[in-house]
Amino acid sequence: MKKGINQMIILIHKPYKILPVSLLLFISSLHAQLPNDISYEEALKITLAAQKVAIDTNSTVNIAVVDAGANLKAFIRMDQSFLGSIDVAIKKAKTARYFNMPTGELGKLTQPGGAIYNIELSNGGLVTFPGGIPIKNKNGTIIGAIGVSGGTIEQDHYIATQAVKTILDE
Amino acid sequence: MKKGINQMIILIHKPYKILPVSLLLFISSLHAQLPNDISYEEALKITLAAQKVAIDTNSTVNIAVVDAGANLKAFIRMDQSFLGSIDVAIKKAKTARYFNMPTGELGKLTQPGGAIYNIELSNGGLVTFPGGIPIKNKNGTIIGAIGVSGGTIEQDHYIATQAVKTILDE
Amino acid sequence: MKKGINQMIILIHKPYKILPVSLLLFISSLHAQLPNDISYEEALKITLAAQKVAIDTNSTVNIAVVDAGANLKAFIRMDQSFLGSIDVAIKKAKTARYFNMPTGELGKLTQPGGAIYNIELSNGGLVTFPGGIPIKNKNGTIIGAIGVSGGTIEQDHYIATQAVKTILDE
Amino acid sequence: MKKGINQMIILIHKPYKILPVSLLLFISSLHAQLPNDISYEEALKITLAAQKVAIDTNSTVNIAVVDAGANLKAFIRMDQSFLGSIDVAIKKAKTARYFNMPTGELGKLTQPGGAIYNIELSNGGLVTFPGGIPIKNKNGTIIGAIGVSGGTIEQDHYIATQAVKTILDE
Repeated sequence: MKKGINQMIILIHKPYKILPVSLLLFISSLHAQLPNDISYEEALKITLAAQKVAIDTNSTVNIAVVDAGANLKAFIRMDQSFLGSIDVAIKKAKTARYFNMPTGELGKLTQPGGAIYNIELSNGGLVTFPGGIPIKNKNGTIIGAIGVSGGTIEQDHYIATQAVKTILDE
Repeated sequence: MKKGINQMIILIHKPYKILPVSLLLFISSLHAQLPNDISYEEALKITLAAQKVAIDTNSTVNIAVVDAGANLKAFIRMDQSFLGSIDVAIKKAKTARYFNMPTGELGKLTQPGGAIYNIELSNGGLVTFPGGIPIKNKNGTIIGAIGVSGGTIEQDHYIATQAVKTILDE
Repeated sequence: MKKGINQMIILIHKPYKILPVSLLLFISSLHAQLPNDISYEEALKITLAAQKVAIDTNSTVNIAVVDAGANLKAFIRMDQSFLGSIDVAIKKAKTARYFNMPTGELGKLTQPGGAIYNIELSNGGLVTFPGGIPIKNKNGTIIGAIGVSGGTIEQDHYIATQAVKTILDE
Repeated sequence: MKKGINQMIILIHKPYKILPVSLLLFISSLHAQLPNDISYEEALKITLAAQKVAIDTNSTVNIAVVDAGANLKAFIRMDQSFLGSIDVAIKKAKTARYFNMPTGELGKLTQPGGAIYNIELSNGGLVTFPGGIPIKNKNGTIIGAIGVSGGTIEQDHYIATQAVKTILDE
């Protein structure tokens, strides 16, 4: 730990600032995940990207990322965001992976009279309004999902949509 | 059934590989169930029949069978089927047995303004759209129920309907 | 598998009844799963093998198989087995995958004074006595887990241990 | 922090790649939290520091940070870490904040015959073995808690202890 700090101090006085996260992401990448499941590195990248979009759009949100098995992989809550959105964000991510579609699409089918009315009561509680999106890798395989909650549903959906693109860039 | 056993006995004296399941089903049948409750043999037969119909109709589904006490008896999840359909399939089967009717019939009564609006909130969560069907024996007695989830509600209902017929054949 | 298919084809041209499961397993195998997650075919094979061992050891048990994400993949309950063992079997399978070890091993650490006393209260309820075993593929990768409940803990553990070997045979 | 911001501004005008997180942390810091509650910036810093210590000690862990209200603030799961540790890490963090002490200290009182035997059954499930630690600010006020799960309890406790120090450095 000492050594890491020293290295960082040196770096701060050089023109290249190395943020600890960069180091972590690099080391983390040595633990290779199989191609059909999201890696920690990807989950963190998407989470931080979502937060950046949230700031850009003046939203304060909760952001959750689940893996291919719908298990929580990363989560952050921005200051001042709704406490009630913690669970909503996690449930949006899980719902998007449970049914491999944006939560808003599912919600169109769950209304009174809809094909799957009240499916929200299954799986310990689903959230079927916009803000959850499957995460796909470059091959188009679903490797996880993101859930965003705290802004308007339009903002939440936009943030989620933008964030998942970031792992396709490189 | 008598005929099937004879065929198996013949096969035992031939050099062809006997699938373990045949033997298992035979032996299993020695543990007699009460006539008003589904046997393991019947539950497995219905489950596998449902999967066959699913393949024939290009569906990937989760299939659950519960007994006369609405307790889980058999379950399978086809590869690539929705993770969220595990719980939905089980809840469809339970719901169909809880109220002795197809889940879709119940759903007509649970809409806003309906006679039993939001009954889905009882019993730890019900599912009231199509895909759950009571299982009856040859005497018409309800001995359990099946729940299918993962396709369209029409597919799920069709698969369930076809599968429950298979124990009436012999 | 190739051999088995040939045998089935031969049998199809004979007047002997072909059990649907053989055909289903064949067709199911066309839906390839990724190598780090259990396939439906493997889950069913292990489940039926466990039931066979249960019969051989005069046990009546519940058998659950979960996938790499700890989600239910297959389940059967033998006639006359304990109703209370449905949930125990499922929780044993989940626990074994949650912590990648036999449930009995975990249980040694959860006793009063143990390192992880009362961890059973996490994850919606764990079961930490014998009967749950991780399922590994030929490469030693954990691809799921099995949970068996209904016999003595020695029987449950034995059944689970024998069953998981069956997917390594071919 | 002021200095860091200046450096970042300089870097923006250089051709060196700026990691998004640096900008995010900067902007995030503009949303001031109350002095008695952990900020998002601090939560992320602690979480990433914990992961670094985990790597240094060859552990693969789940890390959760809760705020002063015991609500989830940040969470990450390292690749290959136990799925069962998601909930354990979160419950350790909550437990540490619920009772304002390290979880291991609480565990000494919850054994059979102990003063608060089986308190783990309250609050939807507590975890009372080591790995949860309150987070204090420079004034010694508890502003949240961290929970680490996935290594040995000694490793988990060490990682948590080291990580919470990082927000006292500046």
